Amino acid sequence: MHALTGDSHAAGFYEPSDKQPGWWDIMIGPGKGMDTDRYFVICANVLGGCMGSTGPASVNPATGKPWGSAFPVVTIGDMVAAQKKLVEHLGITRLLSVIGGSVGGMQALEWAVRFPEMVASAVPLATTTKHSAQAIAFNEVARQAILADPAFCGGDYYESGIPAHGLAVARMIGHITYLSDEAMREKFDRRLQDRCDISFDFEADFQVESYLRYQGGKFVDRFDANSFLRMTRAADYFNLEKAWGNDSAVAAFTRATCPFLVVSYTSDWLYPTYQSKAMVQAMKKNGLDVSFVEIEASFGHDAFLLPNERMTKLLQGFLDRVHGSLHEEGGHAL
Amino acid sequence: MHALTGDSHAAGFYEPSDKQPGWWDIMIGPGKGMDTDRYFVICANVLGGCMGSTGPASVNPATGKPWGSAFPVVTIGDMVAAQKKLVEHLGITRLLSVIGGSVGGMQALEWAVRFPEMVASAVPLATTTKHSAQAIAFNEVARQAILADPAFCGGDYYESGIPAHGLAVARMIGHITYLSDEAMREKFDRRLQDRCDISFDFEADFQVESYLRYQGGKFVDRFDANSFLRMTRAADYFNLEKAWGNDSAVAAFTRATCPFLVVSYTSDWLYPTYQSKAMVQAMKKNGLDVSFVEIEASFGHDAFLLPNERMTKLLQGFLDRVHGSLHEEGGHAL
Repeated sequence: MHALTGDSHAAGFYEPSDKQPGWWDIMIGPGKGMDTDRYFVICANVLGGCMGSTGPASVNPATGKPWGSAFPVVTIGDMVAAQKKLVEHLGITRLLSVIGGSVGGMQALEWAVRFPEMVASAVPLATTTKHSAQAIAFNEVARQAILADPAFCGGDYYESGIPAHGLAVARMIGHITYLSDEAMREKFDRRLQDRCDISFDFEADFQVESYLRYQGGKFVDRFDANSFLRMTRAADYFNLEKAWGNDSAVAAFTRATCPFLVVSYTSDWLYPTYQSKAMVQAMKKNGLDVSFVEIEASFGHDAFLLPNERMTKLLQGFLDRVHGSLHEEGGHAL
Repeated sequence: MHALTGDSHAAGFYEPSDKQPGWWDIMIGPGKGMDTDRYFVICANVLGGCMGSTGPASVNPATGKPWGSAFPVVTIGDMVAAQKKLVEHLGITRLLSVIGGSVGGMQALEWAVRFPEMVASAVPLATTTKHSAQAIAFNEVARQAILADPAFCGGDYYESGIPAHGLAVARMIGHITYLSDEAMREKFDRRLQDRCDISFDFEADFQVESYLRYQGGKFVDRFDANSFLRMTRAADYFNLEKAWGNDSAVAAFTRATCPFLVVSYTSDWLYPTYQSKAMVQAMKKNGLDVSFVEIEASFGHDAFLLPNERMTKLLQGFLDRVHGSLHEEGGHAL
């Protein structure tokens, strides 16, 4: 399952002209963490998104125009319920593993608790059972940047022009939280962009400023502001403990039955390791089979998207073990 | 010296109707960290600000209108140079101590290096010798929020109406960086604001959202967007090492002569302790008299503004010692 603004194109190239492979190409393919010589990989765009599944930019059949503001706020649970329908449509009754990082990890957790009979294992990476106040705060500021853009027009901007400025600022905020103090120092430090000295104005003097502006601008070309609002809201609303356990993580995981591989990253300050540890503890109190690893990485939250030999081996070994134990159970249930 | 958006009203009440005392009332007053029974305290609004000193909202005598976009980007050095003129105007040749936190701490460091003969000691709190890439990144996004507001009008908005939306978003970003993950969890967690359940829209469901919106709105009433742009730029441009030491902190502090009290706070992730430790190391390599303390506090960067018995005692003891050694030097030089 993809993260906040990802899509169904998880690996490989669709067209020879594609500049980039799918967002998790480092992990999905022959011989990779998810070995496509052994397993089928399904990745769908989330409900409410703008990269394939129905979302606010989709046409409302009743009006012939985009849903816009009329499109509802969806939850991680809604996304997973839609994914279940896809899986059933494909004639599959059980998945070897539900795997995702960040908001994709929330979906993995939701799958394991909502449809335990359909998942043989789950791999939530760099994620949390409930969005923290700080994570909500960043999303809220990003949303306010969009809502403050006069072009937003209450969400019905598809004919009048998109809220590009607000969406760019929103994305810039996100990008800071995906990196880390250390990663930014390594990547940019105080280096200047295409100039020998500071400008004494408000141009992008520093490389980090130029990087953020570039990321903001690029995002506007590919993502819909209404979807962004709903994706961030779904993340903020995500609270597995409340939804399934009456505010108790231990109670929520009583519904789960499968083995888990939980991974956090040392420099991830958006979903810090202590949050993964808390979910692992709740899983273990339910006697679940849990492997937990904190991976040393300076890249921040984005680390789960970057090549990491240890992560690849962990996932290979975990899937291998789950696959083997299913065969021992005596079936080709997958 | 005050921080980014502070002012000259550092302590006490100006009017009986004031709801709040000055921004550092916990530290300044009879018997407090800066004991006004023993010492005179001077606090001036910084150059380029909007709370007393000349800034972009001030009237340009040549046009009879506010400076607006014509007001230059000023540096921390410019602010300190202006403060020196004030001090000289008051007939003072030497200051017992230059004290400030955050951007005020940058000014304290600048004072100690730029005008070493005028300062008998310096107390930089929760600050850095050079703004990190991450700190620049947050300021840049805040500026972009303002620049993206159509009401900004290139900075000449005093007649047409202020860029209130952009400025509010900018302030919200700042407020996240002034707290900490832990502080936000303690203060807000996922508690809802004036409602029993989530709204499934984009209202301020969570207390943390309501808090940020309130802070953003309040800021718009008291602060000028053009000053905000210049204050953040001054912080980003601050690089004591480059300005005075050819990119070496050790070289920069060869100019300093006074004792320092350097304080950092455990949960301050805007100017983390490692940055204070680096400056302390550079000071010590110059044989300077340095006291360094990292204070345990969960409040994040804002901790320096909050009551802390240890900080109060540290400052009292430090000023007492500096004051005593000056008298031993044989003079009432202050």
